[in-house]
Amino acid sequence: MTISAMRDLSMTPATENGLRRKPILRKIGVFTSGGDAPGMNAAIRAVTRAAIANKLKVTGIRRGYQGMIEGDFIPLRSSDVSGIIQLGGTILRTARSKEFRTPEGREKAWQQLQNAGIDAVVVIGGDGSFTGALTMSQEYNISFVGIPGTIDNDIYGTDYTIGYETALNSVVCAVDKIRDTAVSHGRIFMVEVMGREAGLLALNSGIACGAEVILIPESKEQHDALKRFLDKGYKRKERSGIVIVAEGDEPGGALKLAENVRCEHPELDVRVSILGHIQRGGSPTANDRINATRMGVAAVDALLDDQKSIMIGIDNGRIVQVPFNKAVKLNHSFDRELLEIQKMLNI
Amino acid sequence: MTISAMRDLSMTPATENGLRRKPILRKIGVFTSGGDAPGMNAAIRAVTRAAIANKLKVTGIRRGYQGMIEGDFIPLRSSDVSGIIQLGGTILRTARSKEFRTPEGREKAWQQLQNAGIDAVVVIGGDGSFTGALTMSQEYNISFVGIPGTIDNDIYGTDYTIGYETALNSVVCAVDKIRDTAVSHGRIFMVEVMGREAGLLALNSGIACGAEVILIPESKEQHDALKRFLDKGYKRKERSGIVIVAEGDEPGGALKLAENVRCEHPELDVRVSILGHIQRGGSPTANDRINATRMGVAAVDALLDDQKSIMIGIDNGRIVQVPFNKAVKLNHSFDRELLEIQKMLNI
Amino acid sequence: MTISAMRDLSMTPATENGLRRKPILRKIGVFTSGGDAPGMNAAIRAVTRAAIANKLKVTGIRRGYQGMIEGDFIPLRSSDVSGIIQLGGTILRTARSKEFRTPEGREKAWQQLQNAGIDAVVVIGGDGSFTGALTMSQEYNISFVGIPGTIDNDIYGTDYTIGYETALNSVVCAVDKIRDTAVSHGRIFMVEVMGREAGLLALNSGIACGAEVILIPESKEQHDALKRFLDKGYKRKERSGIVIVAEGDEPGGALKLAENVRCEHPELDVRVSILGHIQRGGSPTANDRINATRMGVAAVDALLDDQKSIMIGIDNGRIVQVPFNKAVKLNHSFDRELLEIQKMLNI
Amino acid sequence: MTISAMRDLSMTPATENGLRRKPILRKIGVFTSGGDAPGMNAAIRAVTRAAIANKLKVTGIRRGYQGMIEGDFIPLRSSDVSGIIQLGGTILRTARSKEFRTPEGREKAWQQLQNAGIDAVVVIGGDGSFTGALTMSQEYNISFVGIPGTIDNDIYGTDYTIGYETALNSVVCAVDKIRDTAVSHGRIFMVEVMGREAGLLALNSGIACGAEVILIPESKEQHDALKRFLDKGYKRKERSGIVIVAEGDEPGGALKLAENVRCEHPELDVRVSILGHIQRGGSPTANDRINATRMGVAAVDALLDDQKSIMIGIDNGRIVQVPFNKAVKLNHSFDRELLEIQKMLNI
Repeated sequence: MTISAMRDLSMTPATENGLRRKPILRKIGVFTSGGDAPGMNAAIRAVTRAAIANKLKVTGIRRGYQGMIEGDFIPLRSSDVSGIIQLGGTILRTARSKEFRTPEGREKAWQQLQNAGIDAVVVIGGDGSFTGALTMSQEYNISFVGIPGTIDNDIYGTDYTIGYETALNSVVCAVDKIRDTAVSHGRIFMVEVMGREAGLLALNSGIACGAEVILIPESKEQHDALKRFLDKGYKRKERSGIVIVAEGDEPGGALKLAENVRCEHPELDVRVSILGHIQRGGSPTANDRINATRMGVAAVDALLDDQKSIMIGIDNGRIVQVPFNKAVKLNHSFDRELLEIQKMLNI
Repeated sequence: MTISAMRDLSMTPATENGLRRKPILRKIGVFTSGGDAPGMNAAIRAVTRAAIANKLKVTGIRRGYQGMIEGDFIPLRSSDVSGIIQLGGTILRTARSKEFRTPEGREKAWQQLQNAGIDAVVVIGGDGSFTGALTMSQEYNISFVGIPGTIDNDIYGTDYTIGYETALNSVVCAVDKIRDTAVSHGRIFMVEVMGREAGLLALNSGIACGAEVILIPESKEQHDALKRFLDKGYKRKERSGIVIVAEGDEPGGALKLAENVRCEHPELDVRVSILGHIQRGGSPTANDRINATRMGVAAVDALLDDQKSIMIGIDNGRIVQVPFNKAVKLNHSFDRELLEIQKMLNI
Repeated sequence: MTISAMRDLSMTPATENGLRRKPILRKIGVFTSGGDAPGMNAAIRAVTRAAIANKLKVTGIRRGYQGMIEGDFIPLRSSDVSGIIQLGGTILRTARSKEFRTPEGREKAWQQLQNAGIDAVVVIGGDGSFTGALTMSQEYNISFVGIPGTIDNDIYGTDYTIGYETALNSVVCAVDKIRDTAVSHGRIFMVEVMGREAGLLALNSGIACGAEVILIPESKEQHDALKRFLDKGYKRKERSGIVIVAEGDEPGGALKLAENVRCEHPELDVRVSILGHIQRGGSPTANDRINATRMGVAAVDALLDDQKSIMIGIDNGRIVQVPFNKAVKLNHSFDRELLEIQKMLNI
Repeated sequence: MTISAMRDLSMTPATENGLRRKPILRKIGVFTSGGDAPGMNAAIRAVTRAAIANKLKVTGIRRGYQGMIEGDFIPLRSSDVSGIIQLGGTILRTARSKEFRTPEGREKAWQQLQNAGIDAVVVIGGDGSFTGALTMSQEYNISFVGIPGTIDNDIYGTDYTIGYETALNSVVCAVDKIRDTAVSHGRIFMVEVMGREAGLLALNSGIACGAEVILIPESKEQHDALKRFLDKGYKRKERSGIVIVAEGDEPGGALKLAENVRCEHPELDVRVSILGHIQRGGSPTANDRINATRMGVAAVDALLDDQKSIMIGIDNGRIVQVPFNKAVKLNHSFDRELLEIQKMLNI
């Protein structure tokens, strides 16, 4: 990925002890917004401790933009973020806020931040959360720096978003279990995984599980692969298989698909499993913790550098900064390599 | 549990080296039947090796009674069951067979066993599988000994059935993940777990997860608890909770229930998760492996003792034998202790 | 197990709503002592909530008897024990206290309890912890009720101790991983598991992992099995195997044993793995949570019944009460059944 | 990472159906060599199926170079690699071979490959394995293509080696458990992780676990951090902490270190845990399976392209080819970013 808008930050000079102080910044806020993702707590911990190491005070804003409007704030000390790096979910909770979409809501939020003496804010979330931050920073004199936290991994300008890798492994672990039953009974399982607009999670989990067919919104030709697979099953006893279906593949999802297949192939034993929310929780993987930590430190660093309206990302292993304006354009780029591999390995 | 029909076998005398031989028994069959359950492979391994240790030959019958009818047999040597104790599912596969319910089907099965020289059979499955064995052994001169393998733990005469404990832990692990999201968002999750006629899995997993409400077919008063819980939520912000719903609690399951709740409490954020087949697979827990091993050895022991039409069970930690006739009367006894505990701990 | 000293409590009458109140008992203490065990938090939660449900106040005593002496107390409300049922370790911490073994130490502890208005105490720990409680209750007018919490499962009068099952599964999970390498390289692994005086954990984990040899303090004949196994390996290529060694099997443990084997069999590739503290932590299994919860509720129940110097246990699935005097006689009874099974399945 | 020697392969043209055939290549061999690593089976599966998809025959060479010398070969069909993607270890086993280091050994190996009609070979292993392949390909007319499979992630020219990520997560999971006990008892744990010459695994797992101190061969200044941490503990009650120690940090490892600390700080409760071989096994993570699959396909692709003496790697997410000559120069480059982060977050 080559993104001209990014700055490679690996060369950023630091003072001798790695700490930097700016006279003007005294207190920052941090919050999580949108869907929860494993690793958000690791990011909260890193933001908090990096800020404290740089002599900043930290305020946790609970329940996203709604909590900002309501002034649902708690002070965060170093000990408050102890022992949370391995926990799923978010200790600051999260919520969706209709009120924040109105000018009145944002004015209330601004007042609350003012009253609390918060000079700048780190927002951990997805594209919707960054859009909100961008809007507010254009209306009021407040800096936002973002950290991409979403299991969808659909943010432009970063190879990683916090939580995606954990979700991927949760899917793989669940499908490994379902495979036991599929093989034992000679059944075909339609497993529906998250991904309304993108098949990234479906495609990667399908490769990792050795799925026989993977259906994703990006490629309709996969339905031919399904047809071929089912026709083959018709002629063989004991045919079993895993079909991974991205939520957004077609209306009705895996349930509808299974219904259709049962009509055309009444001889096959077809079952459905909708993984749902077990994909979202759980203890984060090592990389989700490490990347969340790196991005949390970099977010504080950016605020100390007087940056605003940028998201911290990781590109080719390095910390980069991406303007919100660019990041919020969802990244649905799609690499056909895995699809070709899938096709080749399941003939 | 005191079952007069059981024999306590812990005192069974054995020859000096623990091995016993009977001149008449030369080859046994073993198969799995009904739904697959984690630990079935551990039982297959134990049956095979215990038989070989007693100089018997072992034939694996694939795909349950259907495979028996079709003569889908494979020889099992010691090395064939090496490295399978930790695998979910069943290497012998399983299937349901309509044909076996007909006299013609059973006659074919009998011919196949005769042709293969199989003198006696170990059947690993649930009450339906034992009923089939009982019927056939009344029609033909063939001995069956059963091992209870079902994640439902609903067999009379045994405290354990293979797979139940693994399923219980799979549910608990999944709900732990869902709890992360429930708490982060202030949501109420309706989690549907297996159990069409019995709430055992729901009740135990609910206690283990600290569920706020547990709905089971055995007790309708729990719906009052749900009502109280939801009414309380109405008055509080950030209310989150887990409601465990046994499949058989009422028509429509968790989906229907959530619909009703959303009508009455539009202010609550209610989501549904149907755990489905992830409850069935996976590597068996230590106890499921150990109990499967013990029962596998005891099943071969029973055949060597010229027993027939009995199921091996575990009662108060000891191996017992239960006549098929008794075992197939499903055990829906239900201990109110856990329900009382649930009520007390969630006030 | 038949223990005349136990009372079967399943028939205990309760008032209509399951709650009982005694005028005299107003505040109880609860603490964990000795080695930490997964499930202790589930017990703390159950004690706290069952007490509150019965209108009692609850004080958490931190760091065991040492914290009692120092008055390291915290109030426990229902919300303080929310979200802890799935956590390993103990939120009240634990410690060993030399001072408590002196009359002066116990007097200080008594004063602290008096000052805090604590009328009775629930102690969660092993035999050492119960001995301390017994001594103190003989010297001062304070009631103790115990809950067995130790991964060693060596307490007389109960089939379960909190944490044992989790530890067993942790060992099995670790050995499953080691087996991958053992088989891939044709190596023999000596895996040392906890158990200084008893081989219970070693024997059960060995059966569950299909270990080739299991060495436990209770049976020296297993060393012959090791010899036979190694001699066989001498004649075969690609020989791999898992030897489970209980800590207490012999001086020097697995390291010393491996050294000896390497001397006698330089042709074998022998490695050692000492599982150590990974056996002790982690999220408790479903049963450890459920049994901890049941025993926590029963402990409060016993205090309300004016009981003292008894341990809550589980016998044949039912809650029982066992006098401390009996419980502290460590249970090293040993069932040869598993050893015979091991011998038979690995010939 | 910018490596001029690499070719970016994402633009490689392919025929219409993604398959390519070369008349000259008919049968390839595949083997695993050196230490086993989770994901090797996924690579074996990908190589086998990609080769078959391209009309090649595949021979599995068992037990590395030693098996090559002995002609320990098995044919691999598509079904032989079914159901192995999720298994740790290697179904082809692995071994070290002294004989292969001699010209006589390599001549025997060459003869065996000739006799079996093997035209080219895919070697899955580390730098030692590639060196062997390079030597042999210089002496005989046989092409080798390598896939980096080692949990050490120390190969030059690739961001990933198969197995490293799984090992990292195994360490993190183990330390999470140990943390339960450390906190409960107020203890300091010295946890020794793999890494004789490099601290990569130690540094990353330490960040992911929130370790208080991380000791690695690359940076001696960390010993000052340890000293400061211990001195602080001296003044506080209930001090607990995790110190991650890379094997190669200093002679004697964690055991020796703990001894020294106990001498200087007798007031601290210091324990040691050597994770050992549990780091090596287990089911591979999603990424280890995906990357192994991608590299397996790319290795066959390279042989079809008439490439030799190159290793397949992944650089910035893309498949690259790296000459063996470069890859075998171990990559001990070391990024100070994580070390700075660790320092900042644990003040």
